[in-house]
Amino acid sequence: MTGELYLEDLEVGQRFHAGEIGMNAEDIIRFARDNDPQYFHLDPETAKASMFGGLVASGWQTAALSMRLLIERGASFAGGVIGAGGDVAWLRPVRPGDVLRIESEVLEITLSRAHPERGIALVKTTTYNQRNEPVQILTARLVVPTRQGREAAPAGDEPIGS
Amino acid sequence: MTGELYLEDLEVGQRFHAGEIGMNAEDIIRFARDNDPQYFHLDPETAKASMFGGLVASGWQTAALSMRLLIERGASFAGGVIGAGGDVAWLRPVRPGDVLRIESEVLEITLSRAHPERGIALVKTTTYNQRNEPVQILTARLVVPTRQGREAAPAGDEPIGS
Repeated sequence: MTGELYLEDLEVGQRFHAGEIGMNAEDIIRFARDNDPQYFHLDPETAKASMFGGLVASGWQTAALSMRLLIERGASFAGGVIGAGGDVAWLRPVRPGDVLRIESEVLEITLSRAHPERGIALVKTTTYNQRNEPVQILTARLVVPTRQGREAAPAGDEPIGS
Repeated sequence: MTGELYLEDLEVGQRFHAGEIGMNAEDIIRFARDNDPQYFHLDPETAKASMFGGLVASGWQTAALSMRLLIERGASFAGGVIGAGGDVAWLRPVRPGDVLRIESEVLEITLSRAHPERGIALVKTTTYNQRNEPVQILTARLVVPTRQGREAAPAGDEPIGS
């Protein structure tokens, strides 16, 4: 994709794909130290005794990196991507050495009556590992600006999903 | 809470609360650099032109830290907390200087027929800022071990939500 995508540029069924991003133990552990310090995210040795049988990435890291792939290499949304929320399912562990890619599809587009300068795109993103196994499905409500509203002033502190 | 909670120790309606965790610009920016490098998460100056009017935390950081509060200071689940997935809604921006706390409630408890050594607890966690405004609602499906299965072997590579 080239250029910046506004809500008017999206259509239901539109697809994006992007990759790859390699996962290593150092990055998995660094994320976990700050954000999700559980032993199966922190220590390859003690993680062997967990239900995963070894070190695995925090699901929040997989979620954030999947969105990063979408917006940096898949779909260049105008103004970046602002998530109002979403549903995430972690299907398989992500381990050091895994290489992730994403496939995304626009499921719904909703205009906002209260805020004509933006709308919500419901985008389903499946993250695959190097064996083409799905490791995560994230269906996110993304706030996307409209072309007609690109001159609008910052919205400040109001709820972002409204 | 003291001790380790197994699935048998949970009941629908049970509540946990925990806090506080302060957010500062340095931590917000460090998370964003690795995981969600958008300008409104990275640069307090340029973020002023965004719809947030200033620097805000990545929603994935809020989600991860809310779970961290739950498991480190709210509910000490046996074996840590393993998320099978969940639904997240970001209601308000989280800014430098904000202080977060969580309130959690057990909504459902589901035993697994295929895996008697564990079950799923559906736990709703609302994250509040220092003005008692909800900033996030996360309803997560957590894999919790059962007492009867605590001798079970690691499950290896199978899907974790099954």
